[in-house]
Amino acid sequence: RMLRRVLCTVLFMGALPSLAEVSQGHISVVLLGATGDLAKKYLWQGLFQLYMDQVSSGHSFTFHGAALTALEPGQRLMFDVLKNLACPPDESPNRCAVLKDQFLKLSQYHQLKTAKSYTLLNREIETLLRQEGLKEAGRIFYFSVPPFAYTEIARHINSSCRPPPGAWLRVVLEKPFGHDLESAQQLAAELTSFFREEEMYRVDHYLGKQAVAHILPFRDQNRQFLDPIWNRHHVERVEVVLKETVDAKGRTSFYEQYGVIRDVLQNHLTEALMFLTMELPANVSKAEEVLQCKLQAFQSLRGLEKNSAVLGQYQAYASQVQEELQKAQDYISTTPTFAGVLIHSDSLRWEGVPFLLTSGKALDERVGYVRVLFKNRAYCTQSETLRDTRHSQCKTKQIIFYIGHGALNTPAVLVSRNLFRPVMPEGSWREAVGPSDLHIFGQPLSDYYVYSPVKERDAYSVLISNIYHGRKDFFITTENLLASWGFWTPLLKSISHQPLRLYPGGMENQHLLDFEMVSGEVAFTLAEPVELLNPSRLMPSDYRSIQSKFRQNPLVSAWSEDLISQLASDIENTASRTVARSGQFHLALSGGSSPVVLFQRLARHHYAFPWKHTHIWLVDERCVPLTDTESNFFSLHNHLLQSVRVPYFNVHPMPVHLNQRLCVEEDRGTELYAKEIMALVANASFDLVLLGVGADGHTASLFPQSENGLEGAQAVVLTESPVKPHQRMSLSLPLINKARQVFVLVLGKGKHDITTLLSRVGHEPRKWPISGVSPSSGQLVWYVDYEALLG
Amino acid sequence: RMLRRVLCTVLFMGALPSLAEVSQGHISVVLLGATGDLAKKYLWQGLFQLYMDQVSSGHSFTFHGAALTALEPGQRLMFDVLKNLACPPDESPNRCAVLKDQFLKLSQYHQLKTAKSYTLLNREIETLLRQEGLKEAGRIFYFSVPPFAYTEIARHINSSCRPPPGAWLRVVLEKPFGHDLESAQQLAAELTSFFREEEMYRVDHYLGKQAVAHILPFRDQNRQFLDPIWNRHHVERVEVVLKETVDAKGRTSFYEQYGVIRDVLQNHLTEALMFLTMELPANVSKAEEVLQCKLQAFQSLRGLEKNSAVLGQYQAYASQVQEELQKAQDYISTTPTFAGVLIHSDSLRWEGVPFLLTSGKALDERVGYVRVLFKNRAYCTQSETLRDTRHSQCKTKQIIFYIGHGALNTPAVLVSRNLFRPVMPEGSWREAVGPSDLHIFGQPLSDYYVYSPVKERDAYSVLISNIYHGRKDFFITTENLLASWGFWTPLLKSISHQPLRLYPGGMENQHLLDFEMVSGEVAFTLAEPVELLNPSRLMPSDYRSIQSKFRQNPLVSAWSEDLISQLASDIENTASRTVARSGQFHLALSGGSSPVVLFQRLARHHYAFPWKHTHIWLVDERCVPLTDTESNFFSLHNHLLQSVRVPYFNVHPMPVHLNQRLCVEEDRGTELYAKEIMALVANASFDLVLLGVGADGHTASLFPQSENGLEGAQAVVLTESPVKPHQRMSLSLPLINKARQVFVLVLGKGKHDITTLLSRVGHEPRKWPISGVSPSSGQLVWYVDYEALLG
Repeated sequence: RMLRRVLCTVLFMGALPSLAEVSQGHISVVLLGATGDLAKKYLWQGLFQLYMDQVSSGHSFTFHGAALTALEPGQRLMFDVLKNLACPPDESPNRCAVLKDQFLKLSQYHQLKTAKSYTLLNREIETLLRQEGLKEAGRIFYFSVPPFAYTEIARHINSSCRPPPGAWLRVVLEKPFGHDLESAQQLAAELTSFFREEEMYRVDHYLGKQAVAHILPFRDQNRQFLDPIWNRHHVERVEVVLKETVDAKGRTSFYEQYGVIRDVLQNHLTEALMFLTMELPANVSKAEEVLQCKLQAFQSLRGLEKNSAVLGQYQAYASQVQEELQKAQDYISTTPTFAGVLIHSDSLRWEGVPFLLTSGKALDERVGYVRVLFKNRAYCTQSETLRDTRHSQCKTKQIIFYIGHGALNTPAVLVSRNLFRPVMPEGSWREAVGPSDLHIFGQPLSDYYVYSPVKERDAYSVLISNIYHGRKDFFITTENLLASWGFWTPLLKSISHQPLRLYPGGMENQHLLDFEMVSGEVAFTLAEPVELLNPSRLMPSDYRSIQSKFRQNPLVSAWSEDLISQLASDIENTASRTVARSGQFHLALSGGSSPVVLFQRLARHHYAFPWKHTHIWLVDERCVPLTDTESNFFSLHNHLLQSVRVPYFNVHPMPVHLNQRLCVEEDRGTELYAKEIMALVANASFDLVLLGVGADGHTASLFPQSENGLEGAQAVVLTESPVKPHQRMSLSLPLINKARQVFVLVLGKGKHDITTLLSRVGHEPRKWPISGVSPSSGQLVWYVDYEALLG
Repeated sequence: RMLRRVLCTVLFMGALPSLAEVSQGHISVVLLGATGDLAKKYLWQGLFQLYMDQVSSGHSFTFHGAALTALEPGQRLMFDVLKNLACPPDESPNRCAVLKDQFLKLSQYHQLKTAKSYTLLNREIETLLRQEGLKEAGRIFYFSVPPFAYTEIARHINSSCRPPPGAWLRVVLEKPFGHDLESAQQLAAELTSFFREEEMYRVDHYLGKQAVAHILPFRDQNRQFLDPIWNRHHVERVEVVLKETVDAKGRTSFYEQYGVIRDVLQNHLTEALMFLTMELPANVSKAEEVLQCKLQAFQSLRGLEKNSAVLGQYQAYASQVQEELQKAQDYISTTPTFAGVLIHSDSLRWEGVPFLLTSGKALDERVGYVRVLFKNRAYCTQSETLRDTRHSQCKTKQIIFYIGHGALNTPAVLVSRNLFRPVMPEGSWREAVGPSDLHIFGQPLSDYYVYSPVKERDAYSVLISNIYHGRKDFFITTENLLASWGFWTPLLKSISHQPLRLYPGGMENQHLLDFEMVSGEVAFTLAEPVELLNPSRLMPSDYRSIQSKFRQNPLVSAWSEDLISQLASDIENTASRTVARSGQFHLALSGGSSPVVLFQRLARHHYAFPWKHTHIWLVDERCVPLTDTESNFFSLHNHLLQSVRVPYFNVHPMPVHLNQRLCVEEDRGTELYAKEIMALVANASFDLVLLGVGADGHTASLFPQSENGLEGAQAVVLTESPVKPHQRMSLSLPLINKARQVFVLVLGKGKHDITTLLSRVGHEPRKWPISGVSPSSGQLVWYVDYEALLG
């Protein structure tokens, strides 16, 4: 009845749609959480905008607000919101007034609480459509509710509210989508049991910000200019920034569980970063192509470590949490409200380019931007003061996607005039002129081509329109979401007990939150200012390592990450000294999992390592092809060799694979390796041998209860492991004991028992081969982490 | 008699040296070319300064001016100069007047023309010393004469003017020291036959410039600050610049033979660069240690290519040359008066850092500086406009050795305040304050710590003092000189016919001489402005390559450098397409000398090459160990593999060295390689095979008059070469012909005959194995340079 009335009005007005167009079908929009904050602030306005835009599209609409509140008060609450809907400035007041009136008539409130109420809603929709003789085009369910309610609502929609065959279902979900990889996987699995992937529209409202949404189209439309420069040879750095002046007051119950990384970096800033770094698909508006390129870009990201981030918390946060969450006065929150994160991609395009993601509350200004800064590759012969500098190639070159607020106070795309004049879509972006004295990123605004949207649109209006158009490329797919959580979760875990820098908030922060990149890590530029430090927050120095003795030899002990840093530095120092003395460095490395972190550390942080003069030998090898993922050499290659420059001739994998077969005695692989060692290593005395220890006391591939390789003249031996793959090749104990230096690395709780045992027993290599390691004229050093040492 | 008189005066004055001190011995300084320009302008003043400084040192002095002019007029000319010697501002006028009077009395003129006149000079010195009862300390011969006179004078000094045993001889030589490596070697060999290395002091007056001379001491005294940042991780670029406003007018007879690279870059700027880049010796004032480090730094420099430099000539130069050298109106000079050169070092410390050397005449200003620009590694969270920026880490960081003139108009050392406060020697450098509104390299002067010399000293005074003190580290040794010429000569040769950019001179140059770095090369930023171009200077485009047919297959031909560029690009394109299609790229490469340039080009200019997915195979190999310099694989490794990242498993050297012996049939190396190919390469069909052609028509290691490898089922064969090493391993012709693509590269005049022959003959592989190359379903492309094609 209601609908027919509206349709009549519509026909009456002439300019509005004819019945023929209405035959495109009917769309029902259900807004769950219709009286909540987000709905009040953005969603109803967005739906009204959709209605205004699409009233002549041929679709007819009804809008169903829903909440837990009973019908009467719920209706009142909702219509209070609807009455206050604004008319956009570019709309004629008359037309808007008419449309608003229609919009109100097409909207109704429902209490949705039980399974039954969903069935009722469904029946109402069906009845309405039948009465009006309308074909159903589709249904949109917009979840503006807390995440704990998702599963229940999803179940009901799936069982009671699906449209009939031929019409589509689109469910729109608002973050948070989990708390870490595991919880996101769980939530995703639940949702997947109710909805197909193409039915789910996960909102990241940043994708509706005009400047962010234009990154891919910009890259596409300016391929001719960007192709040669959109890479590590030309880009110096990329900054993705969202700064807020507000703090978390009033929202600490949410914020305390999430913090800035989950709130802003994992979703908004990461998505913007992906648009910048992903390879450009042939068709940038094909959701599936965009998704594949984005997933590939995620795969290229280098894993984050503890020192990839600097973290802060504004000073008032602790007391806000204490007050709002009724915590004790000595409650300490470890939730960061500021983060700066350094990200690297290992793709050929971006290797080495720093991507800096920064966000925080209680900062000096509200602003969001994505800034691509180019390297200065020019030399300007004429002195700056003596030249026309308007188009100087020596000026900074940058491209900025200005998301909003800040000095410009509008979304914008800025391109330095000495780069190129960009191609912009004429209908939607226009050249803008700002105040002539305004400086943006160190340059006067007149140094840029500046474009701003013809029509500034709220992110939710953009997104609701994209839901209507089925533009899935503006939403986060399950794969996309899990890739992002997969990337961020290790960092979130490793920083959970990281100290936070306290900052006063606002303009007083000054230099306190400046940070710097050093060897692939970041650190605050200023030393921790003592006066700001809450003494109770003082934590033991991470770098405090114990220097002591173990089995009569030097022992270095620390938490595992610090121990690895120390070991890597010690190896580099040994290498440099040895190369300075003898011109080469013979390093024998063990397989297994412990050294992997060491290999990564050496590859990423030790640029001065004399790789060119280093020979790499294997301590032991599994009898599998070298390209098998189980091969020690394969792991060494993956984590170290492919990132550094060791000459091909200096790499000595064990010859376990000869004549197309593995470790067959008559192929004499052991003899071959021994001969290679004799030929290249003076006195067969390695400069450094790195060993591990098994829980059973084995080292190299020398196992207990076997005499193989424990004594005798053989330098290299075939052995049998109790675990698969059983066949191994190993350096012998006598050869290991000829080394100038032996480092033994022991990591983790699982090694506590054997470590304790070894601290008591003497030289009993047949029981515990590791106890036989005792360099005859070299030095032995134990690197044991606190977990292995202290349990 | 004269000397005694002076000594009496000296004694009389009390403040001057006592006889006891005089017993240090006597020094005779002989200035050859005593009435020439350099002597008039700098050298006599420098000698007078030496006398003033050292009058109380305990040494006594006599000064002997010498020239070809007869005694009477020569004396007059010389004493006209001496009478005009200036008193330094920091010297008391009284003392200076007395000392000047003494200096004049200690000086005399000699005509030196024949062997006899040198004998006479020697006798006079001996007589004087005997008469005064003085011990001889040493003799300085300062060559301020044209280089063609060097050998003759050197011979006379060596045979007639050597001091007696116990006293030293120091001969001081002024540039030019040759014209290229060959002429410098010849001149050095001649001089070495007369003087020992330690007797020769080759002057580069830049080493006497206070700011240049302080580079090494600065690095030494600030090790604590510089050690962590003086490397490729922190330095963005280095600029070494000498700009002049004057042109070559009046000096074209010299300049036309030399040009800006020989005049300024090969010596002055290179020396300054070496001080910056060399490893720091433990003792920076030990000449021998400095030299060794400098020579090592020279060795690390990457070779220059044609496109390492941009060259210009000011417009008036041509007419100046025509006039001064009486050349015809259509005479064209190819001498550059402006050069910008991009230099790279391959040392671990500097790999990838661009060093830009720039110099020119008729530019906008006179200034010299060495500027080290650091990377900005900081992110400043607070907006620039809302912070105290005095010590911001986001401001540019630089260290500048300001040689002189320019805006500062004084030698200076500048260090950005956000870097560190440098340690400076208090006696000789002091903190300076400049005009507050002065900007240096884009920053206000107040952003720097600025130091200038306490006492500004002319370069020649510094150098003459260093000659007196025997500080050989301020002079260019023979090894140093030849290393520098060795570095510059290939560039000088390759640019001898390079087109020059004409520039109007002075401030009108504007952006005309700006240049940019692209993929390790440099190019002017602005396209050649047509209106400035002298039409007669138009040269054929270097990149014009002929596309045609050869033996019914596509032919690409160009000058060799352009041909290599084209071939490298074509290989990269093939690689990218193949990887996109099949995930991997199997590339088989030939040995020999022609591909070396190609390998270097691929390593240096093709950053997007999909090396990670490329398999490298050998087309043929010599039966020598892989680490032998004759090995094809060794050359491939040196010129390509060690610079790119091909996974270890994807590198497939030929197994010529098995069981410690070379190419023994029963070791079945050929079978092994064939099996490896079958296992990895689909259908044993390589994606691309690169071949060469021998003058005898051989290709791969398939030689004429032998059927080996020309047909049959064998994929890999052992063959015999007519030249050493005779034994070879090679892919067979049938295997090569299975390739999807075959490129044949033919370079140089030496291949002209075979190229001509091949254009005529048909398929006769037994006579000319290359004629049998004919891929059954693949494509064959010939890359033949103009020299091979046209003779």
